[in-house]
Amino acid sequence: MTRPKIVTFTSDYGLEDEFVGVCRGVMLNIAADLKIVDVHHNVLRQDVRHGAVVLEQSIKYLPVATHLAVVDPGVGSARMAVAIVSSSGSIFVGPDNGLLIPAAESNGARIEAAYELANERYLLTPVSQTFQGRDIFAPGAAHIANGVDPQELGPEVSPDDLIRLEMAEAWIHDDHLHGEVLQVDRFGNLQFNFDLSHLARVGLGDRSRLEVRMEGHRLQVIFGSTFAEVESGEFVLIEDSYGKMSLAVNKGDARAKLRAGNGSTVIVGPTIGE
Amino acid sequence: MTRPKIVTFTSDYGLEDEFVGVCRGVMLNIAADLKIVDVHHNVLRQDVRHGAVVLEQSIKYLPVATHLAVVDPGVGSARMAVAIVSSSGSIFVGPDNGLLIPAAESNGARIEAAYELANERYLLTPVSQTFQGRDIFAPGAAHIANGVDPQELGPEVSPDDLIRLEMAEAWIHDDHLHGEVLQVDRFGNLQFNFDLSHLARVGLGDRSRLEVRMEGHRLQVIFGSTFAEVESGEFVLIEDSYGKMSLAVNKGDARAKLRAGNGSTVIVGPTIGE
Amino acid sequence: MTRPKIVTFTSDYGLEDEFVGVCRGVMLNIAADLKIVDVHHNVLRQDVRHGAVVLEQSIKYLPVATHLAVVDPGVGSARMAVAIVSSSGSIFVGPDNGLLIPAAESNGARIEAAYELANERYLLTPVSQTFQGRDIFAPGAAHIANGVDPQELGPEVSPDDLIRLEMAEAWIHDDHLHGEVLQVDRFGNLQFNFDLSHLARVGLGDRSRLEVRMEGHRLQVIFGSTFAEVESGEFVLIEDSYGKMSLAVNKGDARAKLRAGNGSTVIVGPTIGE
Repeated sequence: MTRPKIVTFTSDYGLEDEFVGVCRGVMLNIAADLKIVDVHHNVLRQDVRHGAVVLEQSIKYLPVATHLAVVDPGVGSARMAVAIVSSSGSIFVGPDNGLLIPAAESNGARIEAAYELANERYLLTPVSQTFQGRDIFAPGAAHIANGVDPQELGPEVSPDDLIRLEMAEAWIHDDHLHGEVLQVDRFGNLQFNFDLSHLARVGLGDRSRLEVRMEGHRLQVIFGSTFAEVESGEFVLIEDSYGKMSLAVNKGDARAKLRAGNGSTVIVGPTIGE
Repeated sequence: MTRPKIVTFTSDYGLEDEFVGVCRGVMLNIAADLKIVDVHHNVLRQDVRHGAVVLEQSIKYLPVATHLAVVDPGVGSARMAVAIVSSSGSIFVGPDNGLLIPAAESNGARIEAAYELANERYLLTPVSQTFQGRDIFAPGAAHIANGVDPQELGPEVSPDDLIRLEMAEAWIHDDHLHGEVLQVDRFGNLQFNFDLSHLARVGLGDRSRLEVRMEGHRLQVIFGSTFAEVESGEFVLIEDSYGKMSLAVNKGDARAKLRAGNGSTVIVGPTIGE
Repeated sequence: MTRPKIVTFTSDYGLEDEFVGVCRGVMLNIAADLKIVDVHHNVLRQDVRHGAVVLEQSIKYLPVATHLAVVDPGVGSARMAVAIVSSSGSIFVGPDNGLLIPAAESNGARIEAAYELANERYLLTPVSQTFQGRDIFAPGAAHIANGVDPQELGPEVSPDDLIRLEMAEAWIHDDHLHGEVLQVDRFGNLQFNFDLSHLARVGLGDRSRLEVRMEGHRLQVIFGSTFAEVESGEFVLIEDSYGKMSLAVNKGDARAKLRAGNGSTVIVGPTIGE
């Protein structure tokens, strides 16, 4: 499989500063014919787990490419910079902090190899302590997208030695599903770390009435297929566009109403009396 | 006329989430050599009329291309998804809710044909109920830009059956011009749905003194060519860069001062005594 | 040196409106195969000095290209629109208000020639009084990137006649370094107009303890290599990723703590007793 000369770019840099623009410049300086595709630059600041969730959910819709991702609270420390080769044909470039792995392994793919970005030939030197997206990651991604073999970039790293995030799995106890919030979208909808198959295992499905316990609240909720199945201001559990269960308020903001956020825990079960 | 492989992209998705990035990915997955041009992603949420105004005003400056636009409060309902072929050479892809028509007919162009985006071969299936920009509109636009004949995308729809917005026209009564606010820019300038020719029909022109009635206010305003013709904090009516009349406050914010917004009505006439 | 068909784009237009998108459209209308690279669209509104600093710091990381920059408080006045040819191989297009010169002369380059954008063939006419990014600067940049010789765009202007900004230089008096804030990043870090070599001239270097006087405060500060060398909430002076000295608060916001901003003055010297 040949990768096109595309670099997708995900980060927590925001668009208020020149960070993203300078990284774009660095890449085009290496290969003027690269196509750079911005996926998301508003990952929660230094929230590696949020970045990993965004990248893993997006990857299914992105072309086989070189995927640059930078959410890097350890910038300037001893954490490695890596290029990860996935059996999907894509290559992932970023910090070795777990950010890249869920995407590299999504949809049944496996990590075939990993390399440390250590060869100064493919870095901007001197490397700064604070802006390594510019000095390490963007140059690495651009050289790979431009055809450099990733093993040229530095020593091989065993996939087993890459740092992995703890991604909490939903679990079942006493006929209740225990999960947590993966991410919150800009409408305040709370996306959970479970899907229809988890709900089915506690006997719940389409049109069920559910009890949802979160942040001290005990909510009676319907499992609907659209927001509009409940009155304005009412809660509804839906399957979102990524196949995850999400708690929403019709024309409202579930995050604000529950004071919930990334990582908030949730317990879902049948309503009492049903 | 051959269309270049360009997709312009207008939406109310904002840039805070991965929505726009995922749509970009979907399109490049279909044709890696497409050029995607972001026009505006901050259309007021679910405000189809605002989207239609933005697209119609911008279209004159965009290349002949495939124009993807998504402002879609009816997502998940029975509204059609359409591709509209304009005699300008451009093709417009989006929901059948009136969003696309002013642009498709701008500058004297006419709608030559329309097709429903129904052929599953050109959709991402299963189509979600909530993110059809990703599953219907972006794939449709990308395939068209990549050379697929729009009639391959689904059954023909009569242009007469397309949904049209009520776009309020300015009207004259008793030597006064009655109009409304089309849109407000980020400086708070109020753009009206009339131009110089409308003003001329009530005997007003450059340098005229005017009375402007809005939101309970009765303002004495000069028709100037620049903001700077009035003192800081004073109102001035100008011809804006799209040829529409706009009410501005020099170094201030007309929207805030008048508590006006999209759709606010206005009556313009000569000042009493002139 | 041949310039690639790249236009980099820096402005104070923001991304809330269609301004940037319409300028992109104008350029692609002139040459559909241009590559447009957004560097930064959140320059402080009408702050030419801020734009000049951003462009000058970024230019080192951008490819040789046509660089379009618009921060233009004089729009609609008699200020010239210019194309500046740098010995670096890049061409800078924007208003003649000093915005472009630091970048055009950076890294030892010199200005070889300048031309007024006056030839109507390369403008959109009629030129509006308020949106000349669309009508003058974007068309000029696109035509140049597309291969038009800059001297076709209008009469030659002597480089000596171009308007230059007063960029305050740091200076030394009585063993103290007197400088000012060049820009503030989104974390509230204050970037100064001096670097390591200036500090050395007052006998200060890595690990020094310094006294910093700003906005009525008198701070005892360490010169460190990372934020983490001081406690949370403490000030630290570091060399930032552009080689300038910056005052930061570990996990905090120096701008807010000192109520400082662009142009705030600072005096740095040894702590008393050392």
